[in-house]
Amino acid sequence: MIFYDCATAPSPRRARIFLAEKNVPHEVVQIDLVSQQQLGEEYRAINPSCTVPALQLTDGTVFTENLGIAAYLEDRYPEPALMGSSSSEKGAILNWNAMIEFQGLMPVAEALRNSTPRMQGRAITGPENYEQIPALAERGVKRVGHFFDRLNEQLKGRDFIASDQFSLADITAVVVVDFARIVKLTPSEDKHPDLLRWRKQLSDRPSLHL
Amino acid sequence: MIFYDCATAPSPRRARIFLAEKNVPHEVVQIDLVSQQQLGEEYRAINPSCTVPALQLTDGTVFTENLGIAAYLEDRYPEPALMGSSSSEKGAILNWNAMIEFQGLMPVAEALRNSTPRMQGRAITGPENYEQIPALAERGVKRVGHFFDRLNEQLKGRDFIASDQFSLADITAVVVVDFARIVKLTPSEDKHPDLLRWRKQLSDRPSLHL
Repeated sequence: MIFYDCATAPSPRRARIFLAEKNVPHEVVQIDLVSQQQLGEEYRAINPSCTVPALQLTDGTVFTENLGIAAYLEDRYPEPALMGSSSSEKGAILNWNAMIEFQGLMPVAEALRNSTPRMQGRAITGPENYEQIPALAERGVKRVGHFFDRLNEQLKGRDFIASDQFSLADITAVVVVDFARIVKLTPSEDKHPDLLRWRKQLSDRPSLHL
Repeated sequence: MIFYDCATAPSPRRARIFLAEKNVPHEVVQIDLVSQQQLGEEYRAINPSCTVPALQLTDGTVFTENLGIAAYLEDRYPEPALMGSSSSEKGAILNWNAMIEFQGLMPVAEALRNSTPRMQGRAITGPENYEQIPALAERGVKRVGHFFDRLNEQLKGRDFIASDQFSLADITAVVVVDFARIVKLTPSEDKHPDLLRWRKQLSDRPSLHL
């Protein structure tokens, strides 16, 4: 299978970590977002949404969303389980993953894409162009603060976010927390000690350093 | 189990359909969003995100996101499968579900919540208040048009969105398409005949009329 990646972007990092944790053999093709290669004809034929990541199977099937990639890989390569074993774990992991996407990932992306000069006219990923909305960047910054508070609360007395093992929820959260630095937002020692402890413990995992 | 619902809102409708398709016995508690019951102390203790739906199990576990609820129920009540049987189906269904959420549900919600007078100061769900951003409402309307085009393209020659059976992807999409009417957006006979054919075929399902 071919993994369409971009080494500097947060969304493909989620799939990259997932692939690495399961040790799934794959070929990597880098898509250069700076030169807008994702909007070119060649990549558009692979992924009409013009986003990275994408995972192309040998039969031509393409998954273009992190959850699609994860659900396919989890079933095809069950070990180690990253989306839970029991019904409750499966529910908790996708529950937290959704919260982290909506309360964390979207606000960071909105804060970045609606403020940085190099993304003028490209405020949303995808084939269509949208102008930046400065008020949305400001709102994003506020929301990320609340997200850090919420995540810290959840991590009190816990090593992982959604179950007693490393899961998809931890992957999404670590990508969001690291990505937030690009808009100068970081958890604070005073307010987010459990979040910082969790992030530090995860640093041992080779998948986070790819 | 207790299902916290709101009969008029799109998000709990997704879970309501999912529960009905699997014929899962449950108790229903209506949360009145008009009087902001979701922000009151009692409901906040159940779901700190102050959103509906929520599903509370007899052991006290609470799922507060549609994907969390779906993942739990799919594993606990496997028949009929709504999230796929093969690895490829599982991938395709969550892939489409994510695209429908980002390209369809979010834009409709943004169009509504950033324009309607009754949602002033409540432009995002959750415990914090955010002012409306009129430019975001306008952007939402544009994006929904592209979403209808994309969904129509996918439905050419198909009865269901992501596999050869009714799935979670169809549930999310039908809720979005119906919800879009609230901001006066509907698929057109000229441009979206396959989308309209799919919607009409689904009308037979009792779960869509609850």
